Amino acid sequence: MVIIMRPDANLPEVEAVVASVNALGFRAHVVPGLARTAVAVIGNPGPLAPGRFSRIPGVARTIPITTPYRLVARETREAPTRVTLGAGPVFGPGNLVVLAGPCAVEEAEQFLATAAAVAQAGATVLRGGIFKPRTSPYSFQGLGLAALPILARAREATGLAVVTEVVEPASVEPVAEVVDMLQIGARNMQNAPLLRAVARTGKPILLKRGPAATIEEFLLAAEYLVVEGNPNVVLCERGVRGFDPATRYLFDVAAIPLLHRLTHLPVIADPSHATGHHALVPSVTRAAVAAGADGVLVEVHSDPGAARSDGQQSLSHPEFDALMRSLPPICAAVGTSLTAPMAHA
Amino acid sequence: MVIIMRPDANLPEVEAVVASVNALGFRAHVVPGLARTAVAVIGNPGPLAPGRFSRIPGVARTIPITTPYRLVARETREAPTRVTLGAGPVFGPGNLVVLAGPCAVEEAEQFLATAAAVAQAGATVLRGGIFKPRTSPYSFQGLGLAALPILARAREATGLAVVTEVVEPASVEPVAEVVDMLQIGARNMQNAPLLRAVARTGKPILLKRGPAATIEEFLLAAEYLVVEGNPNVVLCERGVRGFDPATRYLFDVAAIPLLHRLTHLPVIADPSHATGHHALVPSVTRAAVAAGADGVLVEVHSDPGAARSDGQQSLSHPEFDALMRSLPPICAAVGTSLTAPMAHA
Amino acid sequence: MVIIMRPDANLPEVEAVVASVNALGFRAHVVPGLARTAVAVIGNPGPLAPGRFSRIPGVARTIPITTPYRLVARETREAPTRVTLGAGPVFGPGNLVVLAGPCAVEEAEQFLATAAAVAQAGATVLRGGIFKPRTSPYSFQGLGLAALPILARAREATGLAVVTEVVEPASVEPVAEVVDMLQIGARNMQNAPLLRAVARTGKPILLKRGPAATIEEFLLAAEYLVVEGNPNVVLCERGVRGFDPATRYLFDVAAIPLLHRLTHLPVIADPSHATGHHALVPSVTRAAVAAGADGVLVEVHSDPGAARSDGQQSLSHPEFDALMRSLPPICAAVGTSLTAPMAHA
Amino acid sequence: MVIIMRPDANLPEVEAVVASVNALGFRAHVVPGLARTAVAVIGNPGPLAPGRFSRIPGVARTIPITTPYRLVARETREAPTRVTLGAGPVFGPGNLVVLAGPCAVEEAEQFLATAAAVAQAGATVLRGGIFKPRTSPYSFQGLGLAALPILARAREATGLAVVTEVVEPASVEPVAEVVDMLQIGARNMQNAPLLRAVARTGKPILLKRGPAATIEEFLLAAEYLVVEGNPNVVLCERGVRGFDPATRYLFDVAAIPLLHRLTHLPVIADPSHATGHHALVPSVTRAAVAAGADGVLVEVHSDPGAARSDGQQSLSHPEFDALMRSLPPICAAVGTSLTAPMAHA
Repeated sequence: MVIIMRPDANLPEVEAVVASVNALGFRAHVVPGLARTAVAVIGNPGPLAPGRFSRIPGVARTIPITTPYRLVARETREAPTRVTLGAGPVFGPGNLVVLAGPCAVEEAEQFLATAAAVAQAGATVLRGGIFKPRTSPYSFQGLGLAALPILARAREATGLAVVTEVVEPASVEPVAEVVDMLQIGARNMQNAPLLRAVARTGKPILLKRGPAATIEEFLLAAEYLVVEGNPNVVLCERGVRGFDPATRYLFDVAAIPLLHRLTHLPVIADPSHATGHHALVPSVTRAAVAAGADGVLVEVHSDPGAARSDGQQSLSHPEFDALMRSLPPICAAVGTSLTAPMAHA
Repeated sequence: MVIIMRPDANLPEVEAVVASVNALGFRAHVVPGLARTAVAVIGNPGPLAPGRFSRIPGVARTIPITTPYRLVARETREAPTRVTLGAGPVFGPGNLVVLAGPCAVEEAEQFLATAAAVAQAGATVLRGGIFKPRTSPYSFQGLGLAALPILARAREATGLAVVTEVVEPASVEPVAEVVDMLQIGARNMQNAPLLRAVARTGKPILLKRGPAATIEEFLLAAEYLVVEGNPNVVLCERGVRGFDPATRYLFDVAAIPLLHRLTHLPVIADPSHATGHHALVPSVTRAAVAAGADGVLVEVHSDPGAARSDGQQSLSHPEFDALMRSLPPICAAVGTSLTAPMAHA
Repeated sequence: MVIIMRPDANLPEVEAVVASVNALGFRAHVVPGLARTAVAVIGNPGPLAPGRFSRIPGVARTIPITTPYRLVARETREAPTRVTLGAGPVFGPGNLVVLAGPCAVEEAEQFLATAAAVAQAGATVLRGGIFKPRTSPYSFQGLGLAALPILARAREATGLAVVTEVVEPASVEPVAEVVDMLQIGARNMQNAPLLRAVARTGKPILLKRGPAATIEEFLLAAEYLVVEGNPNVVLCERGVRGFDPATRYLFDVAAIPLLHRLTHLPVIADPSHATGHHALVPSVTRAAVAAGADGVLVEVHSDPGAARSDGQQSLSHPEFDALMRSLPPICAAVGTSLTAPMAHA
Repeated sequence: MVIIMRPDANLPEVEAVVASVNALGFRAHVVPGLARTAVAVIGNPGPLAPGRFSRIPGVARTIPITTPYRLVARETREAPTRVTLGAGPVFGPGNLVVLAGPCAVEEAEQFLATAAAVAQAGATVLRGGIFKPRTSPYSFQGLGLAALPILARAREATGLAVVTEVVEPASVEPVAEVVDMLQIGARNMQNAPLLRAVARTGKPILLKRGPAATIEEFLLAAEYLVVEGNPNVVLCERGVRGFDPATRYLFDVAAIPLLHRLTHLPVIADPSHATGHHALVPSVTRAAVAAGADGVLVEVHSDPGAARSDGQQSLSHPEFDALMRSLPPICAAVGTSLTAPMAHA
């Protein structure tokens, strides 16, 4: 931390700051300047609360220096992490993993039909929500644990790996027994009890960025997972809250190369939630791939107009098929390729 | 819902929309215009998903008409809700309830000292976190259930009502047995399992606005509580995510009169988290009172520089005292007055 | 500036940074840390471009230390600036200046009627736009210079000081000859040619914050004015762009005490543009006064429903009258009082 | 416009709204609903001000139906507009136009060197600011009109078309005599006097999106240009204000396909200003191309570390060269190709 003094701070005030740093067991390094003096704090093992110094007379403000996340930082570990789902798809350099499926599991036959369609089109991970966090209590909330056998059946029928969201600690264990990857949704990015419960299963985790989360907060949420001993974390950019109601969220495509600079974890993108409109999904998916995403998560429904949630943003089977056919040349341009499907069970 | 057609939509396209509305069991009302036609949907009991119509050829966009929240709407119930904590403070017109205390319970004697100080200064509800949702896993996370006896002791010693935050369903019950009001924090505003668990205790609830939540989303989160049969909900504006790092959050003072127009629930303000800086808290507290808040939630610490969380934004005992002395004339100007303390146990 | 090195930066990389600082004629101060080294730059007379160092191998990022504004900074000049309009109202500590009137001058008799009404209610400055920057080219753009005589007549008839907005350098001079204060609108906060032209008139200036401007950018826009030799600058918070369409803009009430800490210039508030809705204006005006504003700018129209611009947010004469009557006790609570009107011409 | 009544609105209140619509010369269409009544306004030639109805008792709110922009709307004209610079590059379907060069013209030889380098790498338009709108009055503001001959010389030497920004009406004419395209910068997107002056030159215009502008506001700014009789407008997404200081602005990649749906004007992207960091520019440029941009605007400097403005975000000559070599396969994937250079003068 660097403590910036006011231009009119006097020597006793600077000395009081130094004493206060020393009292915490750290060393203070006084940096004189033309306009004002700064005091660097040395020897602190992690970030310091700004409140410790901001009330000392003569202090203008404090500036953090230490990066607050460690285990997920690329500065700590240069080699990219690879996250593998069972015998199947691997998130990491060189691969583009396509995760697809309906927003929610609504009914078995329909779900199996979409599973078969996305597998046929080249997806290797199947998504399907059984717990749906909805803005309104009157909206469809998902079928719950009762739908787990449908996920298992789809997995067996298609050979796709399966990812689904969990929303409270109590249901983490039964879900983890069935699926290949657990998703923590955007609303729960900072739900510490849930993060800990999911991490402790040891399963691969798909962590979505909260709509108001900075990149630093996103990485700190991932740190909650990795610090529990589970390194199998895949980050997902899914749009942040913007000021323009023209799209549902504002897709932060620059977050993809930025995260690749800051962390060794794989980074994927969810253009469906980000844009909220099916007509924008193909272009934004292609943009994410061109920006270097390690995967894309696309909502697909056999009859989007009749979907019980998010029909507005879901692609139909033919639309998804067309999108998939457009990806290989872009993959080639950025040095990735579509992953091969998981060995069939 | 009103479905807006493109200017170049032809008659068969309009008829297809009408047929699609009828197929759902609703009536369609065609509204011809100079530039384009609109189709109003009549007879739907609640909001419709836009995805149902947006893919029909000739449709430009859809506009929701129905307010998605019902029980909390002022249109449904004109009379303001009054929320009473035990024998004590009442949130509602004419009263300004002051909730104060440290961000987190750190140690018994210190907490009791602050409790006594805020009671002395005129607060009637004591705040103190035992579960602290923190951005970093390395930050102090609170003392947990072990600190419940400290809350009980402070309550008994001062006669203050006590509010504390819960962060997962599993700890709702033990906490509800001790405190007078349960807080749902900003990060958990849309945590449905937690909302339901808290609502079912029947206890008064303090619901904080999420930092990226629109007013409509905030009211829908409150609807999750009230629909469970618990009408004792107090809303709290605590700042939203803004683009300027000069303050921690952006305090949305206009949300106070806006919420009073839209809902019958009491509305309070948290200037401490909103601004993130103690020097701004007194002015923003006064602004909230002048805007018509039914209460204010202020962080107070006996030694802010040494606080284990949020010291930067906490007032010292004398600072809080000075703030409290400035409030009565503003209360008088807007027709409220500071509540009397709870009858001592 | 402090240059933060990567944890894995080696000694030659640190030395290269030092050499690069020295090459610019400044001194480098190496601050070793547990996790990483930092290099403080000493002797630079103003902010340095981050691009100078960010490409040197081993550099993680750079942190500015120097405040980029100088003349407007409270650190430079502790005493509050007082801005006086002619023989009339003074913006500064102890006074609450009320500026009121219609969004735009539409017609002489109507404008004179509103001028008389706001004067009667206690306003001391009359607002009225003759150039209206509008989002759509099809909206009413104001009467232009032809309306200057109407402003002059209203001024003479009521004794109110007059403020109006200018939108391009070419019309600054003719307008400055008639009015008491020139307004630079939110859209033009960073329009440097306009800022310079207005500053050079020597007239008092009302500078509105841009809807996406940080506090630092706002103060730098003011610096553009003061550096031209015109210290008569009044800052106006008028709402920033938020993510919730429930209000037109998001009124940043905390900006008022924050600006008072950072600058010696007076700070007023515009609750009309900020909220965009007449029903919210009175509460937000009272909040601004309670937060310490040196003035408030309120849109008033004799027939808001018929206004050619901003009728939605304008108060009627009786609504403005009621608002004015509610202000004195709040003023008293924060140590200000309504200004006396300008001596009648 | 649709006027939504409150659920408790009575018949006389609905009739008053109808009368008020009729009084304006329009027709009212009453749409009864289960929960509330709506009144559609028919026959209005353009958007109505909401203030006309919002104060009538029983009115809950008003909803605009009419799109406020017309000439630029794709609904008005389906065929994409092609904008041609002299004998040279054409903005429109099938072409990717690359505009490159330094942020500002600093010195003739250096500028000519960069011009030659970007031409060599495949750019067909040269950018170079001579008026730089800067946040601080102490930053380099550009060489002004004195640098026009440098632009002309670079154009002649390389055969590149030239684009530069104008910042006030007074300098539009002399600049228009020299360059091929006039840029209106993000800060001036709603500067109506400047928009009109630039449009009236008849020259092709590069209009940048303001950092807080919605898509609708952006299109209305373009409408200001086209309504003056100049259809040669190219839109440029350059990042909007976001809440995360990790990047300079938040690049809104979804705006590219969204604008293509809403308008017939070409759409390009500026990844340099959007991200503010050279390391992110290549990935974001590729994303923009994959999303369907009709062009990209990239800052290039012969010695970025020494640039007088925006060095942090400028690519060096070799970095730009590498970026250009990566684009053709992405262009091929989305059906465009790099434009051929302008016929050499």
